[in-house]
Formats: sequence, C-alpha cells, structure tokens
Amino acid sequence: MSFKAAVLGASEYAGAELLRLLAVHPEIDVTVATAGNELGQTVGNVFPHLSRYSDLDLEEVDAAGSVASCDVVFSALPTGVGMRMLPHLDNDVVIDLSGDFCLHDANDFVFWHGTRHLRSDQLGSWAYGLPELFRESIVGAKRIAIPGPFATAATLAIAPLVKHKLIHGVVSVNVLAGASTLRRTSATNGGFAELNDNVIVDKVAIDEQTPEVEMALMWLAGADAHITVSMISHLVPVVRGVSATASALATPGTSVEDCAQAYEADYGDEPFVIVWSNPVGTKMVRGANTVAMQVTLDGRANQVIASCVLDNLMKGSAGQAIQCANLALGLPEITGLTVEGVYP
Amino acid sequence: MSFKAAVLGASEYAGAELLRLLAVHPEIDVTVATAGNELGQTVGNVFPHLSRYSDLDLEEVDAAGSVASCDVVFSALPTGVGMRMLPHLDNDVVIDLSGDFCLHDANDFVFWHGTRHLRSDQLGSWAYGLPELFRESIVGAKRIAIPGPFATAATLAIAPLVKHKLIHGVVSVNVLAGASTLRRTSATNGGFAELNDNVIVDKVAIDEQTPEVEMALMWLAGADAHITVSMISHLVPVVRGVSATASALATPGTSVEDCAQAYEADYGDEPFVIVWSNPVGTKMVRGANTVAMQVTLDGRANQVIASCVLDNLMKGSAGQAIQCANLALGLPEITGLTVEGVYP
Amino acid sequence: MSFKAAVLGASEYAGAELLRLLAVHPEIDVTVATAGNELGQTVGNVFPHLSRYSDLDLEEVDAAGSVASCDVVFSALPTGVGMRMLPHLDNDVVIDLSGDFCLHDANDFVFWHGTRHLRSDQLGSWAYGLPELFRESIVGAKRIAIPGPFATAATLAIAPLVKHKLIHGVVSVNVLAGASTLRRTSATNGGFAELNDNVIVDKVAIDEQTPEVEMALMWLAGADAHITVSMISHLVPVVRGVSATASALATPGTSVEDCAQAYEADYGDEPFVIVWSNPVGTKMVRGANTVAMQVTLDGRANQVIASCVLDNLMKGSAGQAIQCANLALGLPEITGLTVEGVYP
Amino acid sequence: MSFKAAVLGASEYAGAELLRLLAVHPEIDVTVATAGNELGQTVGNVFPHLSRYSDLDLEEVDAAGSVASCDVVFSALPTGVGMRMLPHLDNDVVIDLSGDFCLHDANDFVFWHGTRHLRSDQLGSWAYGLPELFRESIVGAKRIAIPGPFATAATLAIAPLVKHKLIHGVVSVNVLAGASTLRRTSATNGGFAELNDNVIVDKVAIDEQTPEVEMALMWLAGADAHITVSMISHLVPVVRGVSATASALATPGTSVEDCAQAYEADYGDEPFVIVWSNPVGTKMVRGANTVAMQVTLDGRANQVIASCVLDNLMKGSAGQAIQCANLALGLPEITGLTVEGVYP
Repeated sequence: MSFKAAVLGASEYAGAELLRLLAVHPEIDVTVATAGNELGQTVGNVFPHLSRYSDLDLEEVDAAGSVASCDVVFSALPTGVGMRMLPHLDNDVVIDLSGDFCLHDANDFVFWHGTRHLRSDQLGSWAYGLPELFRESIVGAKRIAIPGPFATAATLAIAPLVKHKLIHGVVSVNVLAGASTLRRTSATNGGFAELNDNVIVDKVAIDEQTPEVEMALMWLAGADAHITVSMISHLVPVVRGVSATASALATPGTSVEDCAQAYEADYGDEPFVIVWSNPVGTKMVRGANTVAMQVTLDGRANQVIASCVLDNLMKGSAGQAIQCANLALGLPEITGLTVEGVYP
Repeated sequence: MSFKAAVLGASEYAGAELLRLLAVHPEIDVTVATAGNELGQTVGNVFPHLSRYSDLDLEEVDAAGSVASCDVVFSALPTGVGMRMLPHLDNDVVIDLSGDFCLHDANDFVFWHGTRHLRSDQLGSWAYGLPELFRESIVGAKRIAIPGPFATAATLAIAPLVKHKLIHGVVSVNVLAGASTLRRTSATNGGFAELNDNVIVDKVAIDEQTPEVEMALMWLAGADAHITVSMISHLVPVVRGVSATASALATPGTSVEDCAQAYEADYGDEPFVIVWSNPVGTKMVRGANTVAMQVTLDGRANQVIASCVLDNLMKGSAGQAIQCANLALGLPEITGLTVEGVYP
Repeated sequence: MSFKAAVLGASEYAGAELLRLLAVHPEIDVTVATAGNELGQTVGNVFPHLSRYSDLDLEEVDAAGSVASCDVVFSALPTGVGMRMLPHLDNDVVIDLSGDFCLHDANDFVFWHGTRHLRSDQLGSWAYGLPELFRESIVGAKRIAIPGPFATAATLAIAPLVKHKLIHGVVSVNVLAGASTLRRTSATNGGFAELNDNVIVDKVAIDEQTPEVEMALMWLAGADAHITVSMISHLVPVVRGVSATASALATPGTSVEDCAQAYEADYGDEPFVIVWSNPVGTKMVRGANTVAMQVTLDGRANQVIASCVLDNLMKGSAGQAIQCANLALGLPEITGLTVEGVYP
Repeated sequence: MSFKAAVLGASEYAGAELLRLLAVHPEIDVTVATAGNELGQTVGNVFPHLSRYSDLDLEEVDAAGSVASCDVVFSALPTGVGMRMLPHLDNDVVIDLSGDFCLHDANDFVFWHGTRHLRSDQLGSWAYGLPELFRESIVGAKRIAIPGPFATAATLAIAPLVKHKLIHGVVSVNVLAGASTLRRTSATNGGFAELNDNVIVDKVAIDEQTPEVEMALMWLAGADAHITVSMISHLVPVVRGVSATASALATPGTSVEDCAQAYEADYGDEPFVIVWSNPVGTKMVRGANTVAMQVTLDGRANQVIASCVLDNLMKGSAGQAIQCANLALGLPEITGLTVEGVYP
C-alpha cells in the first residue's frame, strides 16, 4: 500500500529536507539514502534534527542494488550529476531536483550553462514539476524535473499576467535569496561572518534559472510569443526564503482589479497559494509548501508589480518534489505537506 | 469523537503557536480564539501563516458563552491575568501557559513576583505540566500549569543528576534565550536593530522561573532536600530557542559514565528527548516538541555540566501544552506533535 | 577655532549617530542635545556606546536658549516636525535630516505625503545635500536638506546614466533596507521575532523618497527632461544597510564600457565612492561614509542595471550630514569621517 | 617620526582588522602585509572595505626582506605557526596574536594543546598583553603576546574579585562567542545556514584559553594561590562579540558594594573599561576597543556574578594589539583607537 523511496544526495539541504518531510509522510517510506561524503554514517548522526533515522546509513550513490528496489527515487544530486546518473535508473518514478532536465532546448542549456548537455536526447521528456501551472502533465508522470526556487517564484508571480495578457515587454525580476540556496558543502560567500548583517548584490543577468522562466511563460502565452526576463539576485541574511518581485509595463487599459482577478481566477482554488493584500514575507511560509503573492499596479509608471515568496527548501525544492510525487503516484496532492509556516 | 478547544490569548506568540499546532491535530478542533487586541479580525488576517483560520474571529476573552462550549481551554494569557480569569472556568480541562499556577508555595510567589497571588487557594491543585518527570499526575488531570521554557530546560537538564545524587551544592544555570520569549506586544529590548548582532546579559539571579526549578528538583530529591539554583539569562539574536547549561559540584566518586547512565535511565524511552554526544544546538529542535541534551564532567574542577536546548514556543510552551492535553484527554501522548526540527 | 553644535532628535538612531561621529570630529563640539523623550537623562545613560557623553543631558527641543548659542544645528527631528521647528532658528548653519525640505515643489509634497507643506515658502531655498552631484550649492550654504538613504543610493546609482544619456524610459528601483531605517521609537514591523530570518516586500510604488530621485535626476538631465521612477522597497534582516538596484532600457548603442566610463568620469575622484567590479555588499561600507557601486548591461534585455550600497545611518543620513557640514563650514570635506567599513 | 609596520596573516579576520585600524593610526604606517593564500592580490581586492590599500600586495610570509625593514611586526598567524616563525624575527617590536606565547608553563601547553611547544625556551619572555592588569610589563616591551578574546573577557571580569579576595573555590565561566572567533578560512560550524537562528553549546571544559585565565589570576592572587576555572563556550549568531559571565562563591561577608568598589578601584581610570549598572551587551562596544562590565551578588546562592563583553576583533585581538603597540613604542595608549561602539 505504501511506496518505498530512495533519496539521492541526502547530505545536501534539499536531500535532508526530503528526509524530514518523508519522515511524516503516511504513504512513502525512505529505505535508501545516498551521499557523496559522510558515507557510512547514519542520517541521524549527520543531521541531529533527523535522529529518527538512526538506522539509515548514507550509502554511495552508485549502490544500484538498493536504489533499484525502490518505487520512487528523489534525487537531490548537484547540477551536472543528475544528467549523468538518472537516465540509468529503471525505477517507476524518478523526481529530479538537480535542474538538469528542466530546460527543453539544448541550445538554451549551452547558452546559460556554458557547456553541452550530456543527455540532450532526454530534454523534453521530463515533466516540468510546477503543478499550479502544469498539473495535467505531472499526474501519473514517470520522470519529473523540479524547478528551482527562483524559477518557481518568478514563474508563479508572472504567469497570470502573461496568461491574461496584462503586461508586455521585458520582465524585470529581482530575487532575494537566503543562504540555504547555496550548497551545504560549498562555503563560498556563505560564511556567517560574511553574510550576517549584509546584503549582497549577487548575480546580475546571469542566473541559470532565467531561461526556465522564459520557457514556462512562453508555453503559457502561446506559440508565437517571445518573452525576455532580466533577472537580478541578491543574497540576504536569511536561511530559508526566496522572494521574487517582477515588474513589467502594463498593457494599455490594465487596471489593478484586472490583475487581482487574474490571480484569483488562476490561483483561487490552489491549496498551496495565498494571494495576499498586505506585504508578503518569506517567514509566513517558512517550513511550509505554500507560496504567498501580492500584485499591484504603479499607475505613474504604468507598471504591474507582482511578488511571490516561498521557502526554497519546500515549495522551492523538496516540498514541491513531494507534491509532484503525490500526483505521480495517485495520492492526494497535499499528502504529508503542511500549509502553515513556522512563524515567527 | 474529537474535542472542541478554545485558545485564550491567541494574539501572542504562544497562542498563535497553539493555533498552528491544533490546525493539524487530528483530535482537537479550535472553535474559539480570544485576544486582548486586534478584536474582530480573523486569525488569518493577524497571522498570515495561519490563513487556514480565515473564518475564526478574535473575540474578547470574557466572551464566556463561546468558551464555555469547549471541552478544553488552552490559555496563553499573560502572567497575572491567568490567575484572575481561569478559576472562573467550568470547562472539563484547562491548560494554563501564564505560569500563574506553577508554583505551589504562596510565599515563593510573593518573593519572586513582588506581589501576592490572587488565588493562593488554588496553588498546588494544578498539575505541573512536565510529562517526562511528572507524567502520572498529568494523565487525566483537569487543571494543568505548563512550565516556562527556562524552567523546562533547566529542570530536565538537572533532574537526573539530582535523582541519582550525582551533584551537590549550588546549581548555576546559564540560560540563553531568543526574542520570542519576550511578549509579542511588548517592544522592550526586542527591536531588531537593538538585538541583531548583539548578546545581552539580561537577568542575573532575578528570573521568576528560578523557584520552579528548585521546587521541581526538591520534589525529585525527596522531602528533606534543599536545592538552590542561581540563574543568569542572556538575550541572544535567535527567534525560537532556549538553551540552559547547568553546572554543579560532582558528588565524590561521580564519573562521566555515571552521568550518561543516569540520563539514559531517565530519558532513554522518552519520545521527545534526544541525549546527544555532540554539541547540541537549538536549531536541531526548532519547530519540534523535542529537547536535546548533553552531559559532561569537568574533572579538573570536579563539576558536572549539563545542557538542554529546546524551542521555547514548542517544548517551552505550546507544544508541551498539547503534549499535556493529549495525556489529560486520554490520547496518545505524541498526537499532532513533530519530533523533527525545521533545520536549517 | 572649533564650532559648537546642537543635535536635535538625539534619541533617534540618526541623532545618536551624529553624536557618535561628532565625538571624534576635531573641529565640531556638541554642546546641546535635545529629545522628545528620555528627557533629563544623559546621552551616556540612554546609549551605552556613547558613555563619553556622561555629562550631556537630553533637553527639550524647544529650549531655544541653549540651541541659539550653537554655530551649527543638526536636526534629526521626525518628518513633519522639521518643517515646524527649523524655520524659527537663527543659527548660522542648519542641517536637516527630517526630509521636510528636500523636495522643491509643493505639489509633489502633497501628492506623496498626502498633506500640505506647512512652510512651502521655504521649499527651494535649502540646498540639496548630495555633495557628489551638487557640491557647488552646498559649499558655504546656510540651510541644507539631507536626502534620505533610498534617495541617496538610487540617485547616485542612476545619475551617470542620465547625465551621459545611456538610458531611457521608466527607471525601476529595487531597494533593500535594514531595520535602522525604521524609527527607533516605533515598533511597527521592527520586532526581532518578526524580522529575523524574514524578507518582507514592503512598499510598492509608494515610498516618499521616490519624487526626490526624480527631481534630482531631472536637474541633471536638463530642463525638458521627464523621468519616472518606480520604486519597490524590501525590508531585510540587517540593521545598517541599504542597497538600491536600478534598471532601465539602454539607449540604442550603449555598451557596458560606456557605462563604466560614465561612472569613472563622474566618481573617479570622489573620496566616498567606490566603483567595484565584483558584487557589492552593504557590509563593505558599514559604519563608513562610503557608497559602493557596480554597473552592468544585460544585453539580452537591453537593460542597464546599476547598484549602490550604503550605510543608511552614515552616507544615508548622519555621515552625509557631517560631510555637508564640513562643506558649509569651510572644513576639508572628509574631516572626521571614515571610509573603511567595520567588516565583518 | 612614524613607525613602519608589517601585518602577518593579513587574510584572516584579525589581520584585516589590524589593517583597518592602522589605516587611520597617525603614527604607524603599514608597509608590508603577508598571507598564506590569495597571494599577489592587493589587500583592497581581497577585502572591499579596505580599498584604501589598493597598492598593498599580499606577500608570502617568509619574505624576510620586506618584513625585516619594519619597526614593528603584528602577527595574526594561526596557532602553531606563530611559535615557528616569530622567534626568527629581529624586528624591534613583535606583537603576536597567535596565542602561542601566552602561557608561561610548558606543561600547561602540553596539557591543553595536546602537543609540545616548539620553543618552550621563549615561554615567559613575552609580555602578557593585557594592559589593564599588567601595564608596567608592556611599556617598552619588545615581545608581546596578546591574549585571546575569551581570556581577555574572563580575566578582566574576575580579576578585581580575586585581587580583593571576594570569591573562593571554582570559578565557572560561561562564554558566548560570535562567528568571527572562528578562522575566516575554516568553514567548520561557521556556515550561515547552520549558525543563523541557532545557539550551539560548543566547548565544555576544553577551551584552550582556560589556562591563561588561571595563570593571570594566580599572578594577581599571589604566589601560593591556586585557582581553577571551568569554562563553557557557546557559539551564538553574532559576528563580532564575546561575553564572559563568571560566577563563584562569595567570601563570607562580601557585599554587593564591596564588589562595586573593587571594580571602581581597579578600573575607574581605565580609558577602555566601562563599568555599567544596566545589562551589558556586546553591541555597545562593537568596533571599539572598549570592554563593558557589570557585577552582581546573588545573595540566595551567595555567589558573585560578573560579566564582561567585548568585540573579539578589537579588545579581543587587533585593538588590544594596537593598545599594546602604543605602550611598547612610547605613544599615548589610546592613539588610533575608538571607544564608541558602532551601535546599533
């Protein structure tokens, strides 16, 4: 009745978050966890908050035997490793958080990553795991690529504006990102002494999640649309949390009510979306699989401004992966996921 | 089959945390929430992370009609208000987080609070809600007083040392406390600009939770014991989190193995206690009802040193209140509570 | 030989920062400090870091006698109070940090503040205290209005692009602001438990410093220019620190070298400006009167993106006020100011 | 007239802080900076807050030629490296922040560091650089060992109690330490995601600075005294800042006034000591060379409790090194040092 799961890359933040969530998931049991370091230790030793897993050892990721016995594989392997490893798996359902199979165009991959995709034959065959926008392609899917937190936040914020034709021209996106968007085992820029009490202008127009946003928005806009996103990311002293604020010129005649109605129409029934009329903050949704959004019209500049906040380890990776797994396995979509943030 | 609950003082942090936990509790439904301010607003408007409660209005606390209909009352009223309000309630189970009914001796109350207790007749008739040490008095209890976070952490850290007679003399306790131990509606010392990147030596030998620790330890030590606790608290820039580190002279002959065995004997089967051999940190248990502890012997100084960390809104108040409610109502003790901290 | 100074509003963050800086200024001595609360206490008692001022009492602000004896008045009175109080002063030099005399157009003031200016007769007669752009009007000035931190950061970032005609159309500005931009004596949104580990989308298109940026840029652009700024501010968990990132469509033919040369031409000789090729962060300049800037061209979107970071209590208020005072009093511009940030 | 200085270990936090302070020191010019990594880069490139040093290259530490030309050497080399390198220097004044020459007893070194001292012949010949207690041995000294931040804070807090015979028995010291007490180039435990919003019980009875405190206190207490210190350190989410709170049994008859008078007698004239009657916090002295202290008597437990806070990069290392250099070089002790903390 319940499913057996493997978590690959369990020593990274997203992997550990998958273990935390699956510990209380009523239908999925973790039987295998792999990692590239800290091998042989139990999960409970590496992560004290996961002491429940006192018998689960971290294995090498190529331990094909044990992984093969699982119904579903969640992979939090790094970018570049996912594409090498995952095509070899025969498991029924594979859900990838590496980002390697998000883009559908091999040229886009080269442009943004500066290197060729090793398995460009598989691009396009993985469902894009953003249920609020592409649920029908995820239900029952076998291979699902989970969007990163910047792409999830930006795309959800902009999508209703594109679908309802309320904006045009370049979409500027300002992302504010916390430290857990960096890899756990990489210290670059992530030291407490450096980041605390600091705001760093990080990546200007070079973030690799940019083309995903354009791709997803063009799917929504229709075949002949062309959308350009200009993304700036800031590193801010929070641990979990990403906000994306998008601005674009309003289509002539657009009112603030039009914007609000577009959001209500698209998201009113979504269990993991809050459309809010007050200022949204990332801590509203910390530890939850929820996004919170607000939309405004700056009449003086004739710009629509939309913001979306999320927990990058939840709706920005592990939580969304569980949500997609539920859809793939035929379970209720909200199984094992919380909507209440751990606030304050 | 399920119980109806009222939450008094719902606009404070502990009250909001009760609502967050009860939102996913399978056997208890919140039907009433009261507050002293922000009246008439819904809980969902005041606390964005609780948008699920979009229909639950904050009422005045003296709305006796609606509170009376509940099976269980959780009160997060402030110190001094609990003792005035709660004795008038006829509900089956009342669980108080104000601290007003924790002490059993009216003279102790006067000494530490500088004022007389208004209902000293009730002192001693409320169960002391620390299940790991006093579970038998909580099972089926009608009135339960929940210890504060400093008392919970310090008492749990010291208790095995007292029970097994491993220490003697004054017990020094150093508490490190986060900002959510202050009241939400009080700004004193709690501003971000003041507290961030700051460590403040706060209360030296004057914290009101001190006599609770002495009381509970003397219950454990036996009738003729006298125990003196000297407590110092620091305010540190964390939101949720309390650590208590106790030190006391070791009884001659005490070994570090004796200490470890005492902890294992007392806590080995407890679902919400982790005894850890590595350095413990508050974030291990953030958002969880768990405490983590470590114990050491400083052979040079012949001192035993024991530390306990917890989330003050969970095991330090709301979580412990739910744990006690489960015991009072005949439910499994862990119902609706998590042991995995939201880390990092 | 040295000047006597009064600091009005000394119990606010900007007032306290003026006292901190003037404590080591070799040519200016503080002889009077006024406040609206904590009257009769010494500055050293209210602010422990200012124990040097153990003999300086906080007086009422309308103690005209003592203020009148000063050569220079620094006013950190709140918005709305500056305009009532300062026109009555006869002191030789008055430097205002309330923002009340920054705008030159009474209609702009009504539009953004929602109320009439009480002394619109004085608008335009106060020098605009941004030395890097308007130094000649500050040298020897008698009345100087210091721009706020958002206006300082945004205007400095955009100015070279406007002067050298490298951008056109709406300028979008994303501001990230720390907690000390809020008033010390106001708790709204500033509690540690609320702001820590949180990113809040704060003011969308309604920040009152917006029209200052437009005003200053239009002065630089020439008489017939019209410039629209759309500003979004985020509240982030830092104490001191503001970053402003501006984006606008590039004028056809603009190259990234054009942008870099414009910055070098305008700021190459400025003692308090660092143009940086790596990511800038607010902590680089914490405690210093310096701004750090970077400029980039997003070729895909044809947008110029420029960022400026500063310490809002230094270059964003008190430090800039000292810099302007030096110019007004005929002292070397850098007297008493540091360029090295307190990092990390 | 002015002195030429070398800074060894300039890529660590303490080294960078030396450069920040010496940039504004009127009598000492830095002409050489060495580092173990980031060689060939300028200081201004490695540390953006030190852009003033745009012409100062990081050299290899064994570039004996350039170091030899300096009047004074400040060494922020790591523990274990100082003892290898510094005895070979012929410079007039050498000031060491590695801690290698603090202890005077070679057996103590072995006990606490687990390894033999390479130059035990030099132990005892370096002055112990704590001017408030041992000024006479620092004036004109040629070789000075700067105590670490834990030792400085604890020793200053306890010294008057020992000198005036107000305490007896074991002294318990609880240290709270920020992230810049860890080495910049070591990531262990120092990641933002791990430390933010976390309190970690770090070193229980094993901190290497413990024997220094005992040594210094025994010097003060007299030849036949034996003093045992039991130290516990916590890692807290601040960058700069150490607090040390000491408690010990009061000598019979000791009053709180006795304690206050001892502090006033010993520290009343010290330029870098604030004795405070309110709760002290590390941010009072952030960026300053000041310590703030408070002392209390817990009458119930008959314990004296004394706290001292400081900025570990200032009075806990680089600032104290400059203070000692001033004394060694015959300059006024406060030259180039500030007493006002950068607060908030």
